[in-house]
Amino acid sequence: MIRVAINGYGNLGRGVEQAITKNDDMELVVVFTRRDPGSITTQGAPVAHIDDMPAWAEKVDVCLNCGGSATDLAEQGPAAAAHFTTVDSYDTHAEIPAYYASVDAAAKAAGHLAVISTGWDPGLFSMLRVLGEAVLPEGTTTTFWGPGVSQGHSDALRRIDGVLDARQYTLPIQETVDAVKAGDDVELTTRSMHRRDCYVVAADGADLARIEKEIVEMPNYFSDYDTSVTFITAEELAAKHSGIPHGGTVIRRGETSPGVAERIGFELELGSNPEFTGSVLVAMGRAAVRMAARGQTGARTVFDVTLADLSAISPEELRASYL
Amino acid sequence: MIRVAINGYGNLGRGVEQAITKNDDMELVVVFTRRDPGSITTQGAPVAHIDDMPAWAEKVDVCLNCGGSATDLAEQGPAAAAHFTTVDSYDTHAEIPAYYASVDAAAKAAGHLAVISTGWDPGLFSMLRVLGEAVLPEGTTTTFWGPGVSQGHSDALRRIDGVLDARQYTLPIQETVDAVKAGDDVELTTRSMHRRDCYVVAADGADLARIEKEIVEMPNYFSDYDTSVTFITAEELAAKHSGIPHGGTVIRRGETSPGVAERIGFELELGSNPEFTGSVLVAMGRAAVRMAARGQTGARTVFDVTLADLSAISPEELRASYL
Repeated sequence: MIRVAINGYGNLGRGVEQAITKNDDMELVVVFTRRDPGSITTQGAPVAHIDDMPAWAEKVDVCLNCGGSATDLAEQGPAAAAHFTTVDSYDTHAEIPAYYASVDAAAKAAGHLAVISTGWDPGLFSMLRVLGEAVLPEGTTTTFWGPGVSQGHSDALRRIDGVLDARQYTLPIQETVDAVKAGDDVELTTRSMHRRDCYVVAADGADLARIEKEIVEMPNYFSDYDTSVTFITAEELAAKHSGIPHGGTVIRRGETSPGVAERIGFELELGSNPEFTGSVLVAMGRAAVRMAARGQTGARTVFDVTLADLSAISPEELRASYL
Repeated sequence: MIRVAINGYGNLGRGVEQAITKNDDMELVVVFTRRDPGSITTQGAPVAHIDDMPAWAEKVDVCLNCGGSATDLAEQGPAAAAHFTTVDSYDTHAEIPAYYASVDAAAKAAGHLAVISTGWDPGLFSMLRVLGEAVLPEGTTTTFWGPGVSQGHSDALRRIDGVLDARQYTLPIQETVDAVKAGDDVELTTRSMHRRDCYVVAADGADLARIEKEIVEMPNYFSDYDTSVTFITAEELAAKHSGIPHGGTVIRRGETSPGVAERIGFELELGSNPEFTGSVLVAMGRAAVRMAARGQTGARTVFDVTLADLSAISPEELRASYL
């Protein structure tokens, strides 16, 4: 059994906890938190404070870091790599090279392996982008996101005066997706690729017209998109919009000879973004343990992981039944 | 530059030759044939008889075996692995373990590396099956093939008395694909998953009703499918059915918690089956050369190859721009 630690018990940490139950070769042995361990109730695993990590070094095979990229992981990643083989989902794209260097140094110094920036984007989508371009070197890669909940945009709605709660969905514009798949000449702009639907619970007596105007004109978040705003009750929000679905599509299209086009498409439709992301982290955890057992140290990405290492199935069985 | 040899100059060999032109880090240095080398005209590379392979051992970094599985590769695979790092597209699923053992022994004895059973199925589809199951251990994987030309079924049509030429298309049944994507309870049978469309050029005066009956009742090939037969002229066959398109879909669907479903979809739409398959072989050739340079020997499959090794792009650039 692979002994797993979860570091951080938010949505993603709980998604990982759930995913571990689907993998017979893995067991959750501890949840680390920076909060009061007594304040956290898991599905059964003990809870320890992050300051007690060193005491768990010999009892954990891989630590799955479930903090957020914006603040937590920059510190959490290198810190955990000092004690464990680690996996994370660091997703601040522009900062990945610096984050890689920082985790690589910490992991190498401690003789550990750390797989960074897993999940689905970065993660599976990144893998398909590289696969698509390796196979079809001449062509274009296009990524669409959604339909899905954007936490950042939902938070931006909640900061507007008079908004009690809100949920924002990012949606790909289907005609544009179809045009890209077909290889039609279509202009890809922020507005032509995605739209944004907002479901907003307003305070009693709030000026709805003013709120809607503030939303659709909000720079960066909404002004470059066709945005719809629907006011609903708190009950309706709870009943219809409590899930955290997401997904998207990566399309690689290229010609192998004049007039002969090939298309590779990869699509995710996720009922729960954190449960699926957690499922990827767990599979990457298995791979990380195996790579570490072969003596690898330092930072790695999804580009360095083989499918044989990701899979719980033996190489013999993979060859016999999956090729 | 990676120096590439092509072993076998049929449709796939020419597809590989075309694919190499799209990869700036690779050059075609020789085409091997068991025919008279003087009878073959390439895009420019010299042609040598397969008996002369040993003379090319120091001048070739990877040999891409382009013979057919049924007869050629069982012999060609181990033979080429004695002289070169190799890649092939061996696709007789039931025989893969035995073929792996045979190539593994030959490659190990010679200190070479051989990546077997690449292409798209086996190959990319196999990779996605393993990825889907590693991430979603509880669930179902379904593969649909087509729309595309089946060479074996086209050949079966041509063996019918009175048939001058023919082309057979395998088509997925879209309602079944949609049902699988949606997770609907649908019975997956040979007939519910695919249908077969036949375009047949008959000899003057041939009994068309008899030919059609022989086709739709042909065991293994057609009798278990809904099959349509359309008689056309040789000119129409040449004008409308000269391409070799193919493709398909791999769908992995599973629940991460009760009632919460996640779907992974991978789709190929190929204008030219041999040019796309050739493109995969070329990318796998790059990976094989790199793995061999690290001292790996013996047989490998697509499950053992990392995306970093497949890609012409540096690891630093991959981390900076593709995650």
